[in-house]
Amino acid sequence: MSADYIQRIRRLTESLSAHGLDGVILLPGPNLRFCTGLSFHLMGRPTLAFLTVDRPPLLLVPELERSKAEGNTVGANVSTYGEDVASRQAAFADAAATLDLARRRMGVEPLRMRWLEERLLEEAAPGGRLESAEAVLEPIRAEKAPDEIAAIERAVGVAQTALEKTLTAIRLGMSELELASELTLQLLRAGSETELPFSPIVASGPNTALPHAIPTARPLQSGDLLILDWGATVDGYISDLTRTFALESLEAEWKRIHAVVVDANAAGRAAAGPGVACRTVDAAARAVIEAAGYGPAFIHRTGHGIGLEAHEAPYIRGDNDAVLQPGMTFTVEPGIYLAGRGGVRVEDNVVITADGATTLSTLPRALQILSVN
Amino acid sequence: MSADYIQRIRRLTESLSAHGLDGVILLPGPNLRFCTGLSFHLMGRPTLAFLTVDRPPLLLVPELERSKAEGNTVGANVSTYGEDVASRQAAFADAAATLDLARRRMGVEPLRMRWLEERLLEEAAPGGRLESAEAVLEPIRAEKAPDEIAAIERAVGVAQTALEKTLTAIRLGMSELELASELTLQLLRAGSETELPFSPIVASGPNTALPHAIPTARPLQSGDLLILDWGATVDGYISDLTRTFALESLEAEWKRIHAVVVDANAAGRAAAGPGVACRTVDAAARAVIEAAGYGPAFIHRTGHGIGLEAHEAPYIRGDNDAVLQPGMTFTVEPGIYLAGRGGVRVEDNVVITADGATTLSTLPRALQILSVN
Repeated sequence: MSADYIQRIRRLTESLSAHGLDGVILLPGPNLRFCTGLSFHLMGRPTLAFLTVDRPPLLLVPELERSKAEGNTVGANVSTYGEDVASRQAAFADAAATLDLARRRMGVEPLRMRWLEERLLEEAAPGGRLESAEAVLEPIRAEKAPDEIAAIERAVGVAQTALEKTLTAIRLGMSELELASELTLQLLRAGSETELPFSPIVASGPNTALPHAIPTARPLQSGDLLILDWGATVDGYISDLTRTFALESLEAEWKRIHAVVVDANAAGRAAAGPGVACRTVDAAARAVIEAAGYGPAFIHRTGHGIGLEAHEAPYIRGDNDAVLQPGMTFTVEPGIYLAGRGGVRVEDNVVITADGATTLSTLPRALQILSVN
Repeated sequence: MSADYIQRIRRLTESLSAHGLDGVILLPGPNLRFCTGLSFHLMGRPTLAFLTVDRPPLLLVPELERSKAEGNTVGANVSTYGEDVASRQAAFADAAATLDLARRRMGVEPLRMRWLEERLLEEAAPGGRLESAEAVLEPIRAEKAPDEIAAIERAVGVAQTALEKTLTAIRLGMSELELASELTLQLLRAGSETELPFSPIVASGPNTALPHAIPTARPLQSGDLLILDWGATVDGYISDLTRTFALESLEAEWKRIHAVVVDANAAGRAAAGPGVACRTVDAAARAVIEAAGYGPAFIHRTGHGIGLEAHEAPYIRGDNDAVLQPGMTFTVEPGIYLAGRGGVRVEDNVVITADGATTLSTLPRALQILSVN
């Protein structure tokens, strides 16, 4: 990837005034990476990028990140602080003075900006106002360029290869944790970067009733439902897929439920296209599940955007009037969950094109009853 | 692990009044896991635990986490909200009413509490006060119980096994990214949980000058310095080790620097013991590097606590007067970094005992020049 970061920052700052903002403050994560190419981790030491409408970008980083920050290619000035906590406040005060923060309205990332940085900013610039920058940040990443879509497509390919290898390793008696480890290993072998988009979900039997199950020591048993929800990272971009299998056999009711979820998945994907509202895609998938009598058991939204993050705009929700545009990439992942009993989810990755939508993932969706004895 | 979570919550809430707090609000992460056994991910949907001095714990979670939350073993009530964003505010208002938040001083985690949750809390309980709970949360996790130390010891063992396997796979021309993938894979094979404490750092040649280097496509070359900084997770507890190698050969100056860092590491570990201030350990390691003339090149603290988190109390810093106690576990990781040229870091994991300190990691520290052609 050889993104034009200066151009991206310009696009961002040009859109600020329409939102009444004088700048944005980015913390380590996908927005910072998208705008500057810089990857940091969100850890104990405050690390901030200030992008304003009228001054050069400023990176405020711990001294130990100075070299990396000074390697920036966006003309950003670098300010650092030392390991003593007191020196942080001085660095924040300097930044506030340089950027006149006390008289600014700065946008922040609601899921990134923390108590830690907020307090330091408040002290350094008591008159300054912080507001959510969500409305300005979401659009700049939502419509992917061709090289971004290509990376997501490769991440889908890596994830699919990893699944195929993993399926051959499944055995009764193996724990969810062991299977999660095998799946992770196969993701790396297939070419994923080591920072996976998320730790794979492996849920079996009654644990499949939890959409966000964390793998446990439960051994796989004959007759189990088995949900695998996993993804790969390629050039920073991610994939996010789910398939639900059965081990050896499956009760008739769950076979019916699985078929309903597959139909809902297909309906959601079929509804997607340029100019279509996110809520329309959600409604299409949900209608299939409601018609089958399982409406209340579909307890989450139909999907979410994917890109540098595993959850980003567009959100495929019943209350989201936002309209899909070419280049948008997202998941379609309806599910049915019966508390204490089990659940089924089938998730694919979709990209909106000029005249419709392409499903990037090609793994079979129909129920596979695995012979794993 | 069969921790007594109710007892842990009691210990926490009993210590609140000394800090002028009526309760704490925990977000997904190690504090929540330590106090309740519940593992969630910090993602887009607000997920909070309210622990107060006088009411049962309250878990405020998205509807799709209801089953998991209701499985809590600490007598917590569960309140949920749906996928429409509007229903969040109602759930927060209910929680505020139930817990009388508008008249409370609640402690928050400075590195977890986000803009998102803060705004929802402010709206729901306009008169309520939020303050940092760091002073009350850090101590409850800092002194590890024997089963916690045993888990860290196993995590060190897994990390060491993984390194030994990885060393045999290193070849000239291999990229940092490929080596990071191999190391990750060996961590899983050796028995680490899939959620590693952090993505391994693999830095070669001039990239070793960056303490927080992210692996790149740079191919390994003869004469390179090579820093590996990696860790494993076992039962949620982590290890965090670093060794610096040379490939085929090394300049004399860097051999001297490596020896200085090894000596500084030994001095730091030797200084550690019960009743010793954190700053004394930092000073011991730093004195060795300063005496060798590289003081300004040791650009970070000497270490940090490890446990459920890769960075937690005690922080081994020059400005930290806190005193080490038996059961505390932390890293000793001095380094010397010369911008644009390279760096060396040697990191071990230490536990404070009744009468001294034990180093849990046993990998050789002296410079190893690897034959990798």
